[in-house]
Amino acid sequence: MYCVGIDIGGMSVKAGVIDRDGNILKKGKVVTDVAGGDDKIISDIGDLVLSLADPKDRDFVGIGIGCPGAINSSTGTVDRAYNLNWTNVALAEKLARKINKPIKVSNDANCAALGETMFGVGRMYSDTIFITLGTGVGGGVILDNKLYEGNESKGGELGHMVLVVDGEPCTCGRNGCMEAYCSASALIRETKCAMLANKDSEMWKFSPSLADVDGKTAFECSKKGDKAAIGVVEYFVKYLGEGMLNFANIFRPQAIILGGGVCAQGDYLIDKLKDYCKDRNYGFEGMPRFDILVAQLGNDAGMIGAAGLIYSDLKK
Amino acid sequence: MYCVGIDIGGMSVKAGVIDRDGNILKKGKVVTDVAGGDDKIISDIGDLVLSLADPKDRDFVGIGIGCPGAINSSTGTVDRAYNLNWTNVALAEKLARKINKPIKVSNDANCAALGETMFGVGRMYSDTIFITLGTGVGGGVILDNKLYEGNESKGGELGHMVLVVDGEPCTCGRNGCMEAYCSASALIRETKCAMLANKDSEMWKFSPSLADVDGKTAFECSKKGDKAAIGVVEYFVKYLGEGMLNFANIFRPQAIILGGGVCAQGDYLIDKLKDYCKDRNYGFEGMPRFDILVAQLGNDAGMIGAAGLIYSDLKK
Repeated sequence: MYCVGIDIGGMSVKAGVIDRDGNILKKGKVVTDVAGGDDKIISDIGDLVLSLADPKDRDFVGIGIGCPGAINSSTGTVDRAYNLNWTNVALAEKLARKINKPIKVSNDANCAALGETMFGVGRMYSDTIFITLGTGVGGGVILDNKLYEGNESKGGELGHMVLVVDGEPCTCGRNGCMEAYCSASALIRETKCAMLANKDSEMWKFSPSLADVDGKTAFECSKKGDKAAIGVVEYFVKYLGEGMLNFANIFRPQAIILGGGVCAQGDYLIDKLKDYCKDRNYGFEGMPRFDILVAQLGNDAGMIGAAGLIYSDLKK
Repeated sequence: MYCVGIDIGGMSVKAGVIDRDGNILKKGKVVTDVAGGDDKIISDIGDLVLSLADPKDRDFVGIGIGCPGAINSSTGTVDRAYNLNWTNVALAEKLARKINKPIKVSNDANCAALGETMFGVGRMYSDTIFITLGTGVGGGVILDNKLYEGNESKGGELGHMVLVVDGEPCTCGRNGCMEAYCSASALIRETKCAMLANKDSEMWKFSPSLADVDGKTAFECSKKGDKAAIGVVEYFVKYLGEGMLNFANIFRPQAIILGGGVCAQGDYLIDKLKDYCKDRNYGFEGMPRFDILVAQLGNDAGMIGAAGLIYSDLKK
């Protein structure tokens, strides 16, 4: 038994033949022809699938698709995807005209969450929260081994939980969202602030101009004992820790899985987060604690998790 | 078909025969003999059930119990219930020795959430968030008509989502929880602060001394146009609104149901909350919005919802 998992990105569409254990048996890729419009992209996706798998093969049980933007997974429709310039595109229906297989569509971050939980670092757990720390903060919620998407699949916007009423402005229009404190962009903002306030910081050696600052600047200099850098890392850990504790109180997951570039810091970040959360766990002594894990499927998480949309449905 | 729903409180245990539509057919009550210990209370509960229903009747399909504290609903065990002085009490198992019927146990706020969604103001919805604004802030999450309780039934601690990192101290040990801004206690704290800062406020006529202040003081004087009172109400609405918007982004429920004494303010409160949330809904124009409703089952919500534990299980 196998599925085709598809990850639609603004630059390219990646597809893979994924077996029941989440292994990638074959891979393919096509440029995302945004200018060509939705019909062209969907036609290209169809060709890509046909190049990887034969619809007549009964072992080929379905196609899962991860797509950026706001998706209605019950209808397989993309309501809005800004970087594809799509509005109300009946993705599943249109692809089904070309390939007669079960097709499931979900948001790309949700697929990554499902992939990591079914086949990645979270495979020993049934209830996880996945948080990606990138330009923004995205995530997904897995309850009882299945994706929880909320009403019209519009839930799971974990980055837009306000941690500080009247806090830093967020892209979503509100103030103080987790994204405004825990994204790579927020980390870079705080690093720059700390550098401007501390002209003798080691960070100026690591990143000679503000334009050179990235998500590593504060972390690497913090490891060398630079005070200003330590302050930035403590700030980042504090807000990320508070956000994770909130999700723990709301969902009480077995594990919270972190993804995104900053997780390359590995144990240096995770140990600090564990320390922060340790004494702040809600409730009595025996209250279940959550593990903190780093995602391990990397850029393939979305594609593998897209296949998981089909597999987790088979379980029903 | 009927169930017996039980609501265990620190003062009394209430029980009712509840039909498939959530109607109360019969009611009973017994004093909670906290000093007598768990065996005595459970024995009293058994007698109460037997006074209401005959276990030999095949129409009597089960017993649902709402209990304060930390419950493991998969085992029917009460891990901790401070006001009953219970630790690791195998409630379902012990009661089953007396009455051979299916028995389900859950936290009392969770039962109220289920009751309001299955049989109360939320009965047209399948996905709701229930928030009780009392001395603390509690709540429950209903997904697809079923209670979501999290790992070991320890999720759904909605009041302990931090809205203000480093904010007002909370009973849970963290700072800035929703409970520290949206509980009746927080409303009273803010009312007193505003009165002390505004000696000419109308609130001093409504509540001549600080000891007289309750959850109505600010609301009633706000209606009369008192500036300081309006400020307190705006503060309360703002933090409650931010908390509700967080839950909307996380769960995207169809409705958020509010319970607790302050909801007696009805449309005066709800209209302000709708106004606050209207322009702050996440995402694009067509993003599903959530209804804001006032709970309608009052003190019976927990008992009715406890019966719902059995009925929602029958649906499986």
